[in-house]
Amino acid sequence: MHTAYQQLSDIFTRISRFNHLSTFARWDMQTMMSKDGSQARSEALAEMGVLCHRLLCDSKVGVLLDEASQELLDGADKANLAEMCGTYRRAVVLPEELVKAKSLAIGKCGFAWLTQRLANDWTGFAENLRVVITLTREEAKIRGESTGLSRYDALLDLYEPGMRSVELDRIFEDLRTWLPDLLQQVVARQAPNPPLPLQGPFDLSKQRELALKVMQILGFNFSAGRLDSSAHPLSIGIPEDLRITTRYDENNFLRALFATIHETGHARYEQNLPKAWRDQPVGLARSTGIHESQSLMFEMQLARSAPFLKLLHPLVMEMFGESPALTESNFIALTRRVQTGLIRVEADEISYPLHVSLRYEIEKALIEGEIEVDDIPALWNDKMKTYLGIDTEGNYQNGCMQDIHWTQGAIGYFPTYTLGAMYAAQLFQGARIAIPTLDSEISEKNLCELSDWLKQNIWSKGSRYAADVIIADATGETLNTKHFRTHLERRYLHC
Amino acid sequence: MHTAYQQLSDIFTRISRFNHLSTFARWDMQTMMSKDGSQARSEALAEMGVLCHRLLCDSKVGVLLDEASQELLDGADKANLAEMCGTYRRAVVLPEELVKAKSLAIGKCGFAWLTQRLANDWTGFAENLRVVITLTREEAKIRGESTGLSRYDALLDLYEPGMRSVELDRIFEDLRTWLPDLLQQVVARQAPNPPLPLQGPFDLSKQRELALKVMQILGFNFSAGRLDSSAHPLSIGIPEDLRITTRYDENNFLRALFATIHETGHARYEQNLPKAWRDQPVGLARSTGIHESQSLMFEMQLARSAPFLKLLHPLVMEMFGESPALTESNFIALTRRVQTGLIRVEADEISYPLHVSLRYEIEKALIEGEIEVDDIPALWNDKMKTYLGIDTEGNYQNGCMQDIHWTQGAIGYFPTYTLGAMYAAQLFQGARIAIPTLDSEISEKNLCELSDWLKQNIWSKGSRYAADVIIADATGETLNTKHFRTHLERRYLHC
Repeated sequence: MHTAYQQLSDIFTRISRFNHLSTFARWDMQTMMSKDGSQARSEALAEMGVLCHRLLCDSKVGVLLDEASQELLDGADKANLAEMCGTYRRAVVLPEELVKAKSLAIGKCGFAWLTQRLANDWTGFAENLRVVITLTREEAKIRGESTGLSRYDALLDLYEPGMRSVELDRIFEDLRTWLPDLLQQVVARQAPNPPLPLQGPFDLSKQRELALKVMQILGFNFSAGRLDSSAHPLSIGIPEDLRITTRYDENNFLRALFATIHETGHARYEQNLPKAWRDQPVGLARSTGIHESQSLMFEMQLARSAPFLKLLHPLVMEMFGESPALTESNFIALTRRVQTGLIRVEADEISYPLHVSLRYEIEKALIEGEIEVDDIPALWNDKMKTYLGIDTEGNYQNGCMQDIHWTQGAIGYFPTYTLGAMYAAQLFQGARIAIPTLDSEISEKNLCELSDWLKQNIWSKGSRYAADVIIADATGETLNTKHFRTHLERRYLHC
Repeated sequence: MHTAYQQLSDIFTRISRFNHLSTFARWDMQTMMSKDGSQARSEALAEMGVLCHRLLCDSKVGVLLDEASQELLDGADKANLAEMCGTYRRAVVLPEELVKAKSLAIGKCGFAWLTQRLANDWTGFAENLRVVITLTREEAKIRGESTGLSRYDALLDLYEPGMRSVELDRIFEDLRTWLPDLLQQVVARQAPNPPLPLQGPFDLSKQRELALKVMQILGFNFSAGRLDSSAHPLSIGIPEDLRITTRYDENNFLRALFATIHETGHARYEQNLPKAWRDQPVGLARSTGIHESQSLMFEMQLARSAPFLKLLHPLVMEMFGESPALTESNFIALTRRVQTGLIRVEADEISYPLHVSLRYEIEKALIEGEIEVDDIPALWNDKMKTYLGIDTEGNYQNGCMQDIHWTQGAIGYFPTYTLGAMYAAQLFQGARIAIPTLDSEISEKNLCELSDWLKQNIWSKGSRYAADVIIADATGETLNTKHFRTHLERRYLHC
């Protein structure tokens, strides 16, 4: 006879297998799906969402969880049981009808967004988004009531368990005391000697070839994943088959290159999650913020470090040939160029938190019912002017329609980008201390020790420990935002 | 309160949505999946297979089917109910463990085959195939007992409902009285003036471009489908998103071109199935033989007709430039070249039924337990020598390992290729009579009337009528094999 815990493991394995099919159907939706396939795909995903919700909320699961809590379990299994409990509690509060309605609404909204964004069609987009937001508010209300958290915090907790908006407010308030000032200083510092701009076009297949080479250097496992293109760079899949996508700009190869490096950071985390806990909740990545710390460690800490840029430069030359903009010093200056712009995913690391702050403020107000979907464009424009001095009026495409998150009802996700940036700075500093020869290893394309350190401290832990425990074990302290500031000042003011 | 029939419709819609996810996961497996993703994918598909089987076999379904049979239903709904009954009966006899075991085994066998075939690794392949065949024999035994059919017929009925091996034996025996003779005659007739061979290499991206152009002419709806490449050409998907694949040979662009035309025939059938019956059994394609009649009508009847080849020729020239092998007459001679060869999917239409006869005889003996998997290579070699005069000893890759069907446990499928060829000849003759100006319309790239005729007579009917009713309604008679013979003699002897 199976123990209650074993029976739960079987149930979660089954759900994980069903999620597998949904995961790749979602990837397909962003990369391969035919235009006319949208409705059937949304219906299929919604049906599967309902099924998984039903399997998870089965009264048997509640009973088994109670029974299993009395069983003698070792550390990893105990952590797994705790994750099962959390997953169950988060699911059981939501009515099936809401799960289904939201799944349908986000399928429709997300797919229409692909073309609406290109057409700058805010009116059409808003119509779908209103439905998504109404349903997400309903979800937030229910989650808030069941957890005692505010509506926004109840959603935030889905992405960054344990994080609260009072802590985020503190972080963003602190950022606003020094970041705009730093931004101005750096812009002023770079102004007298702007780098020569890139001279495109850069052949897309060569851009792809370069991206693949760099993924190789970064240790991406091509037996367990692939690179494609989509409207929005993403990383999705399972540890054994992790799909990353990028988008190419013929005039600026740096965009796809660094987006790919970013997604490779996500991918390496996933590819190195503990195989022994496959299909179990404890085997999943810890949180969205920790996930982002890995992508940003790759994109910002590692790939924009001097030794990495110096090894990247000859690869770029090999691909695109010599040109005035591609001397080593100009290439480095381009990759470290601080310049306010419209697009979050292409922002430099100093402006980036301001893009996030803007989205965080808007989505929090939106979910708490203080503003409506129709208020977004004006608020977006105001805040872009205040934080970054940029007018976005009428430019929805590269304004409030640029991101996929809200189309998916993923409210509470954006702030984890800035948490990720801060974790990344702290972790990379930790890695530097642990590996004194890190810079020279990077110069030699040798990322073994860094990979091992990350594997040991982050990747192999899955969801066994809370985010702050993982960070403290790796670096000796819980989240300390000073590392991020130190990193920025060192790279952009004191170099 | 929903009627029993409405409740059944809902159940079948739900199953269809789950099948949607499996369908695209299967496509992904053949085209996109990472090497390491195989096990998790197979497990996910097996889990889904079990779920759908369970949903279908729920005792509630049996009760509802009984109740619905008392309800007053109109023609299409009545036909739908009959299809539901058949689907239920075919599912309910199989134990869940067998469904799961077979799904796992075919996932493993099919994926390993992709690389084993390239490596000519019969030993490795046979190990997986033995498992698939053991399970398929078990299935055949159970199906045979429940239907009173022979084991082979019980499987054949899954692909071509109503067809029996006694009828197939009659057809293949008849073929063997005149086809080898015709083959010899045509080979002798073509021998004195062999066409100049193609001079490759032919750029793969140009081959793809040509394939896309021809799909366009053939009326493929690119809003509802796409073209990719895979180890074995296939057509899979849903009417709103139909994926076809082809495989490219750098030295012979005709292979990918005609494979693509073939798959486009399948795709147009699927894309034009009745939308009103979406997600319902009656909305599915009638049978594998009827399906094949559409692909072969496109590939053999239409695309190799003189007017179509004449419109194809300038497109080919445009893509690959002038060369001695690409004069119009040589191009036509190449596409109508009759030459015995190793590969079924590349065979000319005269040798093709002999490839099928060989497979039919082997798989029938295999499933009836008269031979074992290990006997296949020797039998294959013997029959290839007898029917086509070709020695295949040691060449598993292009011998008994060339097809995907057995890896999927799809025994009973092969003969439907020849049924399809015969239906195609009969239907095209029917279309010619209905559309007296057909040839001149084809010359003008105008396939509207032909499409309309096929839509009306085949595509829009889904599974509403039995195959022989569809054929008789379209052509005035049930399957008459003389049309196939007349077609071959007219094209290859009297032209």
